[in-house]
Amino acid sequence: MSEPLGGLLSAPPAIVAAGVDVFSDALRAQGAEVHDVDWRPPGFGRADDLAALALDPRRATANRVAVERLLAAGSVLVDVRPARVVLDLQDRTLLHSGPPLTWENASGPMRGALIGACLFEGWATDPADAERILAAGEITLEPCHHHRTVGPMAGVTSPSMWMWCLEDPVHGGRAFCNLNEGLGKVLRMGAYNDEVLTRLAWMRDVLGPILSAAVRAPLEAGADPIDVKAILAQMLQMGDEGHNRNRAGSLMALRELSPAIVAVDALSSGHSSDDIAAVLRFIGGNEHFFLNLGMPTAKLAMDAARDVPGSSMVTVMARNGTEFGIQTAGTGDRWFTGPAQTPVGLYLGDYGPEDANPDIGDSAIMETYGVGGFSMAAAPAIVRFVGGTVPDALATTERMYQLTLTENPAMAIPIMGFRGSPTGIDVLKVARTGWLPQINTGMAGRVAGTGQVGAGLVQPPQECFEKALAALAEEARGA
Amino acid sequence: MSEPLGGLLSAPPAIVAAGVDVFSDALRAQGAEVHDVDWRPPGFGRADDLAALALDPRRATANRVAVERLLAAGSVLVDVRPARVVLDLQDRTLLHSGPPLTWENASGPMRGALIGACLFEGWATDPADAERILAAGEITLEPCHHHRTVGPMAGVTSPSMWMWCLEDPVHGGRAFCNLNEGLGKVLRMGAYNDEVLTRLAWMRDVLGPILSAAVRAPLEAGADPIDVKAILAQMLQMGDEGHNRNRAGSLMALRELSPAIVAVDALSSGHSSDDIAAVLRFIGGNEHFFLNLGMPTAKLAMDAARDVPGSSMVTVMARNGTEFGIQTAGTGDRWFTGPAQTPVGLYLGDYGPEDANPDIGDSAIMETYGVGGFSMAAAPAIVRFVGGTVPDALATTERMYQLTLTENPAMAIPIMGFRGSPTGIDVLKVARTGWLPQINTGMAGRVAGTGQVGAGLVQPPQECFEKALAALAEEARGA
Repeated sequence: MSEPLGGLLSAPPAIVAAGVDVFSDALRAQGAEVHDVDWRPPGFGRADDLAALALDPRRATANRVAVERLLAAGSVLVDVRPARVVLDLQDRTLLHSGPPLTWENASGPMRGALIGACLFEGWATDPADAERILAAGEITLEPCHHHRTVGPMAGVTSPSMWMWCLEDPVHGGRAFCNLNEGLGKVLRMGAYNDEVLTRLAWMRDVLGPILSAAVRAPLEAGADPIDVKAILAQMLQMGDEGHNRNRAGSLMALRELSPAIVAVDALSSGHSSDDIAAVLRFIGGNEHFFLNLGMPTAKLAMDAARDVPGSSMVTVMARNGTEFGIQTAGTGDRWFTGPAQTPVGLYLGDYGPEDANPDIGDSAIMETYGVGGFSMAAAPAIVRFVGGTVPDALATTERMYQLTLTENPAMAIPIMGFRGSPTGIDVLKVARTGWLPQINTGMAGRVAGTGQVGAGLVQPPQECFEKALAALAEEARGA
Repeated sequence: MSEPLGGLLSAPPAIVAAGVDVFSDALRAQGAEVHDVDWRPPGFGRADDLAALALDPRRATANRVAVERLLAAGSVLVDVRPARVVLDLQDRTLLHSGPPLTWENASGPMRGALIGACLFEGWATDPADAERILAAGEITLEPCHHHRTVGPMAGVTSPSMWMWCLEDPVHGGRAFCNLNEGLGKVLRMGAYNDEVLTRLAWMRDVLGPILSAAVRAPLEAGADPIDVKAILAQMLQMGDEGHNRNRAGSLMALRELSPAIVAVDALSSGHSSDDIAAVLRFIGGNEHFFLNLGMPTAKLAMDAARDVPGSSMVTVMARNGTEFGIQTAGTGDRWFTGPAQTPVGLYLGDYGPEDANPDIGDSAIMETYGVGGFSMAAAPAIVRFVGGTVPDALATTERMYQLTLTENPAMAIPIMGFRGSPTGIDVLKVARTGWLPQINTGMAGRVAGTGQVGAGLVQPPQECFEKALAALAEEARGA
C-alpha cells in the first residue's frame, strides 16, 4: 500500500457532509466526526422578477388571505350523482387530468383511458373505432380542473360515471371526483380491457346508485353530512399521508357509509343483499377508495384560495402525462406548464423504470394542500410502497416547511410533535431555495392498456415555477 | 446579585444529563453543551438468585424455545359462542381479570362489575342483593386466565356473554374474550346502571347472535377464517399500539366482518335490517372494539410459550385492581403478585388522580406480547390519550428492547425503520436493569359504578419480578 493511502485508512476518518443533515446526524450517532456544510441547491429566477415579487406591497396581505381561506375551508359529502347531471358537460366531452391536452400530445395511459371511456359510453364499437373518433376530434377533451373536478392518474371522467359531490360549508364551493376503481388494470391507469369495462359498468349500475342512496337518505332524514376533512385529518394520525396511502381513510369511509348502505336494502330499491354485500366488499378491498374523496377535499380548499391578486401561493399542481401544470392564487386560471418528469420508485411484478409513463394525474392536489408527499413523516410505512427510507420521509416533510407559507393545524403530524403539515406552496420560496415540491404518486404503464406499473416519488419541472414567477412578477409590476 | 450566582448565569450553561438520552439529545440539538452520565436505575434481586439464573445451563435453550413458540403462534377467528357453551364454568361462576381474588379484597370497579354481572345474569334482584350473595360466597370467582380467557379492565365474564373464540393454527391452542362494550359507563370499568345492563342485554340478544352467524356462515361455506394476527400487525403500520389505540384495528375488523354481517340478514335469521345497521353502527362507533380480539391473540402466543422449564420469559402480566400478577414460562401456572400501582395519565371530564383505581385488567397481555406500551413508538398519537410526549413514546420503546429477549418481525414498527417490536420480557433482564415493563392502560373509577375516568401509564410492582426471580432461581438450583 502506498504511503498516502495508508495514512488515509489508518487514522479515524474526518467526514464532510453537504446538505441534508439526515446523513451527518446518522454518522454522528455512530460516533464519527462530521463537519456539516450548509449546502442547498441553487435557487432560480431572474433577479428583477424575484425583487418585484418580494417588494410587491400586496404580497404579505394577499398570501395571508389565501392561507386563511385555505385553512378555513371545510369539506362535507353532500351527494353522489352522475357526471352528466352535476357537471356542465357538452355532448361527447371527456374530462382528463392536468393542464389542457390534445389527442396528438396524449401519452399512452391517457390515450388508453380515453379509448376506454369511449367504449364505456358506447361512442365507439372497438378500440380502433375509439382511436379514430378521438383522432378526428369528434370528442371534446377538457381538463377536470376546468369543471371544479379532479381525477387521479388519467382522470378521465365521462358522463355516465358517478361523482362524489363535496361542498365547502365555509365558502360554499363545490368540487367533484369520480369513484375509485381500485388498483391494477383500471381505466385511470390506461387499461381498457373487458375486466376494466365490466367493472365500470358495475360501478355505474350498482355501486353508484347504492352509494347515492346511502348518502342521500340520511341527509334527507336530517343527518349531518359526512365530514370528509375530519377523516383526512384523522388519517394523518393513522399512518396515511392521503395520496398514496389511504388505508385508514378508506376504512373510515366504509365505517361512515356502511350503516346507510345496509339501510338501502331496507328501502327495497331494487338492489339485492348480494349487491349490498358486494359494495361493502368492493370498498373494503380497495385501499385507495378514499383518495377520490380526499382529492376534492383538497380541491375545495385550494379553490377557496383562488383569485387573490398579489398572492404567490400555488393553487393547483396537476399533470396530464405529458405536461405538468401549476396555477397560483395571484394569476387565476392561467396554467404554467413544463414537461412531466418520470417518477422513481418501486415497481409491481416484472415492471421496471422503462415501463413507467411520465407523471400523470390531478392527485398532486394533495401536495398542493400540504398532505401527500408533504406529510410523508405521518406515514413512514409508505416508503415500502413509493421507495426511500423512513429518515427520507421525515427529512422530506422537514424540507417542505421551507417552501410553504404556513402550517395547517387541522392536519397535525404526530411524530413531529403534532406540528401542522407544511401548507401553501409559495412560488417565491420555491425559487429562492431551489427546492421543488415533493410528490408521492402512482405510476401508469407507458403503453396504453398496461395499467399500473408501480408507485414512486416525483417533482414538478422547475420550468412551471420559472414561468409562474415571471407571470407573478409582471403582474406585480403592473399592480 | 451575589458573585457566585452572577457567575452561574453570565456564562453559557454546562449541562450534565443522567440516564435517558432523549433529554440530552434535545439539549444538544439546541446547541447546548451536554455531558452524559450513563446512569440507570439500580437493579434488584439477591446476587445468588441472579447467579443461579444466569448460570442455569438450560436457560439459553429454554428461552429460545419459548421465544420461537411465541413468534410462531398465529391467531384466527373461528367462532363466537356464549361463555356457558365454550368455557368450562361451574354454575354461578364469574371470571375476573388478574390473579385470584376474593370479594373482600376486591376494589371498587371490580365489585361494581361483579354486581352488574349478577344483575345481568338474573342472580340478584338489585345491587344490594348482588352484594349480599357475593359477600356470602354464593358466587364462585375465578381468574379469566385459568380458563384460557382474557378480559379487559375488571374482565368480568359471565355465562350469558358471547365470546370471541380464537385459535392458534400453528400450535392448536384456543383463547377467548368477551365482546367490547365501548367506553364510558361500561361493566368492565365497574359501572352497572340501567344503561350498562340494557347494552349488555342488547349484546346478548342482537350483537352476539349476529356476529356468531357472520363468523360461522363464511367458515361453513369454506372461507378462510379472519387472520387476527395479521390485523394486529397491520395496526402497528397505522398508528395503533393495540392496547389503548385500536382505531385502525377496529376499522379493519369492521371491514372483515361487514359483508358477512349484511349476509346474515339475507338468511332470514330473525334479525331486521335495523338490527344489522345497529350492529354496524355499534362496531363503527367503538374505537376499542378490536381490543377484545387483540388480547386473545396475544394470549394464544403467550400460552404457546407456557411450561418451558428453565425459561425466564414472562407469559402473563395481569391485574385484578388490587394485585398485579405475573407468570413465567419456567414456572407454569404460579402467580407472582404485588400491590397494583395507580396509573398516571389524562383524565376524562372533571375526574382527577384521586378518582382513579389501582391498575386493573388482563389487557397487559398486550405488553407481555410486545405491543401496547412496548410499541408506543408505532403510535405517537396515543400520547394525547395516555399522556406524555412523542419523544417519551419513542424512548419507551427503545428502553423496552433492554428488557426483552427478541424482536418480533411480524410486529414491525415503521418509524424505527421497521424494527420488530421488543418481545419476550426476561425476568433476569428486568432484575439486572431495574427497568420495569411499561404498560398503557385505561383507568377505572375507584368507586364502584363510576366507569372510566381516564387513561394513562403504569408499571408492575417490582415485587412481582423479585418473587419470580427467586422462584426461577430455586427451580434452577433444583434442576
